[in-house]
Amino acid sequence: MSNSIPKPVQDLIQSFTRLPGIGPKTAQRLAMHLLESSNGLTEELADAIRTLKVSTRLCSQCWHLTAQDPCAICSDSMRDRGILCVVEEPAEVIAFEKTGRYKGLYHVLHGALSPLDGIGPEDLKMSELLERIEAGRREGAEAVAIVEIILATNPTMEGEATANYLAKWLKPFGVKVTRIARGLPSGANIEYADDLTLTSALEGRREY
Amino acid sequence: MSNSIPKPVQDLIQSFTRLPGIGPKTAQRLAMHLLESSNGLTEELADAIRTLKVSTRLCSQCWHLTAQDPCAICSDSMRDRGILCVVEEPAEVIAFEKTGRYKGLYHVLHGALSPLDGIGPEDLKMSELLERIEAGRREGAEAVAIVEIILATNPTMEGEATANYLAKWLKPFGVKVTRIARGLPSGANIEYADDLTLTSALEGRREY
Repeated sequence: MSNSIPKPVQDLIQSFTRLPGIGPKTAQRLAMHLLESSNGLTEELADAIRTLKVSTRLCSQCWHLTAQDPCAICSDSMRDRGILCVVEEPAEVIAFEKTGRYKGLYHVLHGALSPLDGIGPEDLKMSELLERIEAGRREGAEAVAIVEIILATNPTMEGEATANYLAKWLKPFGVKVTRIARGLPSGANIEYADDLTLTSALEGRREY
Repeated sequence: MSNSIPKPVQDLIQSFTRLPGIGPKTAQRLAMHLLESSNGLTEELADAIRTLKVSTRLCSQCWHLTAQDPCAICSDSMRDRGILCVVEEPAEVIAFEKTGRYKGLYHVLHGALSPLDGIGPEDLKMSELLERIEAGRREGAEAVAIVEIILATNPTMEGEATANYLAKWLKPFGVKVTRIARGLPSGANIEYADDLTLTSALEGRREY
């Protein structure tokens, strides 16, 4: 087989398979497509990949990805600066923004606590969260005081541990700390839901 | 949403979605992965895409993709130069080579006849196929005479039409022309096979 695929094509297939969800067959199909496509697409893709990291940084306020600092969300004067939604990763900011329903600001931890992987509080943007809370409490502060922190880490073992840790850690500051709801996702079938989800759905029931 | 995804990331997502089988969600996941990965991977991928077209050409004998001309298959002295396997696309050469069972050479047409799309014989590498046959028939020729041409175009409407056309077109040259077998693929279930495949499987039956 190595004889039948030219080296430059093999190199690209190799690179593509290092991306998540791209197996050897998909990688080969992508490479063959690029070979047959216009030079415009290959140039555009190569440029986009090359400039990606150079032109993208983290917002110094919420640690979301951004092209300019502070990010568009933190710079938006229409947002409620008193509420912070704490998430694990930038992709989750994007997911919440897609709903168009959240009008507060964010705080991206860049991970979740995971003792087994050696990830502790000092590896996450936790002291930076504290700094944001304190900035709003200083006398004569320019920053708006934070009144609510929504813990929106994932409903996984690590995400729950991180939410628990943060809830305890934030207690002394007298800020309202909430956790996003767990329950059945819309469109789900109760018959196939797992026990934990069903239990959460029952426990989180609200009056009609 | 556009606010929450920095422009360079949006550009890359946009480029990725122009690839086959990559939807917006996959494109976003790939872009986020590249952002979080080492600079090595982004550089490697950008380089591989950029050099792909520059360093890949078509073999002047069989028209398969290659880094140097003639390609590794055509240059291989162990291959049987009297047999040509005619395929539509380079990806099909790679598929046949993966089996490791074919020892002849190839001829890549770069497409199939498709009157509806305006693709006629002159748009495919057909005269080049003729040239290869004639090169072996010239008196005192260096090239080996071609004794068999295997038509391995796809068992689709266009592929069958191309095979039919080639079979008639090659008749005057007195070369043996064969067509790859149609039938049930290995692992298939007769219950779910389509009529055409079942008919081919019956018609192509061989004595045990």
